Amino acid sequence: MRERASRAIAECRLIGAMTEEPGSITRRFLTAPVRDVHAHLRARMESISLNVRVDAAGNMRGLWEPQGTAGRRLLMGSHIDTVPDAGAFDGVLGVTMALELVALAQERKLPLALEVIAFSEEEGVRFGVPFIGSRAVAGRFDPALLEIKDEDGITLGAAIREFGLDPTRLDEAAIGKDALAFFEIHIEQGPVLESEQLHVAAVTGIVGQSRLAVEFVGLANHAGTTPMSMRQDALTAAAEWITAVEQCALHMDGLAATVGRIAVKPGAANVVPGSATLALDIRHARDAARNAATEELLAKARAIADRRGLSVEWRQQMDVPAVPMDERLTAFIADAISAAGMPPKRMSSGAGHDAMVLASRMPTAMLFLRSPGGISHHPSETVLVEDVEAALHAGWNFLERFAAEIR
Amino acid sequence: MRERASRAIAECRLIGAMTEEPGSITRRFLTAPVRDVHAHLRARMESISLNVRVDAAGNMRGLWEPQGTAGRRLLMGSHIDTVPDAGAFDGVLGVTMALELVALAQERKLPLALEVIAFSEEEGVRFGVPFIGSRAVAGRFDPALLEIKDEDGITLGAAIREFGLDPTRLDEAAIGKDALAFFEIHIEQGPVLESEQLHVAAVTGIVGQSRLAVEFVGLANHAGTTPMSMRQDALTAAAEWITAVEQCALHMDGLAATVGRIAVKPGAANVVPGSATLALDIRHARDAARNAATEELLAKARAIADRRGLSVEWRQQMDVPAVPMDERLTAFIADAISAAGMPPKRMSSGAGHDAMVLASRMPTAMLFLRSPGGISHHPSETVLVEDVEAALHAGWNFLERFAAEIR
Repeated sequence: MRERASRAIAECRLIGAMTEEPGSITRRFLTAPVRDVHAHLRARMESISLNVRVDAAGNMRGLWEPQGTAGRRLLMGSHIDTVPDAGAFDGVLGVTMALELVALAQERKLPLALEVIAFSEEEGVRFGVPFIGSRAVAGRFDPALLEIKDEDGITLGAAIREFGLDPTRLDEAAIGKDALAFFEIHIEQGPVLESEQLHVAAVTGIVGQSRLAVEFVGLANHAGTTPMSMRQDALTAAAEWITAVEQCALHMDGLAATVGRIAVKPGAANVVPGSATLALDIRHARDAARNAATEELLAKARAIADRRGLSVEWRQQMDVPAVPMDERLTAFIADAISAAGMPPKRMSSGAGHDAMVLASRMPTAMLFLRSPGGISHHPSETVLVEDVEAALHAGWNFLERFAAEIR
Repeated sequence: MRERASRAIAECRLIGAMTEEPGSITRRFLTAPVRDVHAHLRARMESISLNVRVDAAGNMRGLWEPQGTAGRRLLMGSHIDTVPDAGAFDGVLGVTMALELVALAQERKLPLALEVIAFSEEEGVRFGVPFIGSRAVAGRFDPALLEIKDEDGITLGAAIREFGLDPTRLDEAAIGKDALAFFEIHIEQGPVLESEQLHVAAVTGIVGQSRLAVEFVGLANHAGTTPMSMRQDALTAAAEWITAVEQCALHMDGLAATVGRIAVKPGAANVVPGSATLALDIRHARDAARNAATEELLAKARAIADRRGLSVEWRQQMDVPAVPMDERLTAFIADAISAAGMPPKRMSSGAGHDAMVLASRMPTAMLFLRSPGGISHHPSETVLVEDVEAALHAGWNFLERFAAEIR
């Protein structure tokens, strides 16, 4: 298994060299280096006798159907597009590990059909819309999306045609009833497993996410001539609130609340800020908890503004419900981790994944493996070979259990 | 006196129509509308028999020398340049009121020579350097400044020549020993007099000012996958500090501390900020108090950063000492206010004025009058005729006292 782990990692490094920008990894949806990745994966898939096709959304799919399985199969995989200046493992590792598991299933004659999917688009970088690949596979692709444009003005439809695919055949990318479930392996992209010194975890669900634009409005004034007690400073109000947001999130289990952006006007060193606009991102695995926290924080903003004689307005920009993973499959994964001799850690995912989209169509489960330093979306993103080995162990145990259960 | 007040105000409105941008008031140093202002002021000065000249720095100067005064004179005035989209009274009112006081002195045969100066440059808008006019009058003009350029690449020297003046004769703008003192009338540009329902105040000094760039550095991280307890969020650290800055200034008499600018990186809604850079402006009439407050706030920043596992760095960008006004003349002004039947309010100025530069050469005093709404550097900047009238009363009382004292 150590050898398989090493190969899965080496394949990621190799694919990392296929990039739009030599020297760093940037591989957006349907750009030139994706052809290289497809050629590479096709050769690899064909070397283990998979039946390979690229669907109209650009997803590369390799099917393994042992006799007697009648096409009733488990889907596995992750995405091969990246953010700009990315690491080598986000997404790609879920594909190379799936291929190792298929090879193992062949070797050990597992009576289970498997389809490995290298999703074409998950990050949303090129068109500003994420999950294009998994939407197509889930049969959730809205044809109106074909008209969205990238920064060069190329529509999604044109990009698909330019890649040699036929956007009128997107329907054919959708899975049918013979697809039984989806299993995704992904790096954690956070520091939790590292801080608990664990190799892997079963993912219980993807957190729901709200995003709000919040604006405090006071009165811009001369920083020298306006006494402190007569100010309506929008930034000091915002600062008090940012501190309150942090305190609230620190004291509420599982809540992540972040102000990642702030802009003040007029923004001159010698002028008391008249307005401060902030972006608030709130995530929690339970929607009720997320909504309650949002309410509490907005009430706090109102109270701070009132006390200071300012006004505050907000606008909800995003409200994505939490997506729980399938409970039964997640229990299988936890058992599979235990059976590999590790603590059956469960955790939610704070980031979105293809599994989120597939979960709307079929039972879906995820396995996380440790991200050293918690680092992702950065060139120094990496994985430890012992973690990949542990994840392959757990993954194999899961496949065996799944095959046994569907008999 | 009410008539004189109305005329001083009307003259400001009239001069406000002389602008680089029709519909708003913008009149930078030595631009075309300054010629119109000079023509207007020259006519007005000559109508009351002043001896008029424009010095090489573009200051228009009108001299009134009654017999027997041997040129030993009091200087009065303020500036005629403006910030972009300015009000009509900042600076200009100090010139038009000075002219009313000269006319009154003539009428009442005050045995005192008076020189009214309409300073050419105070705001620092065109060349990024303030007080060009008053520097020349104070004999504090550094010839190296002739090489600085405006945004069109025109040097200060060329701008002076283009206006028809001779930059080699800047020395002749400097006042000699026969200039006894400087007296400036200016709008407060803040809300203090309005909040205390007062017409005018004697200015005790111009506050000293420090400006610092402060940067908190933490670690940028994914807003979804990084638990609250594992973050090194530069913005929450900055927010805690901004709140501390405000608290410190609220509790220290006479201190103004402002964070007017903040920038976070990477500045994305879904990324925990890795760095936050702030501009801190601190002002106080006593340099020791300002320096002590600065030390305290930087120690606080260090403590906040240490506790949160971040680093913090700062760089001092400005350190301008406080400029006290002349104590004896300020007492005369307070007495003059009392003699006009008003409380002898004293206050410091949070903004810089030409008086700040002149004070380095001669006894200098200032009289503030109320700014309705505390508003300045804005088209809605205004004055009340009763305040201008009160200020003329006090100003006249001051002139009489000054004339009597120098006998």
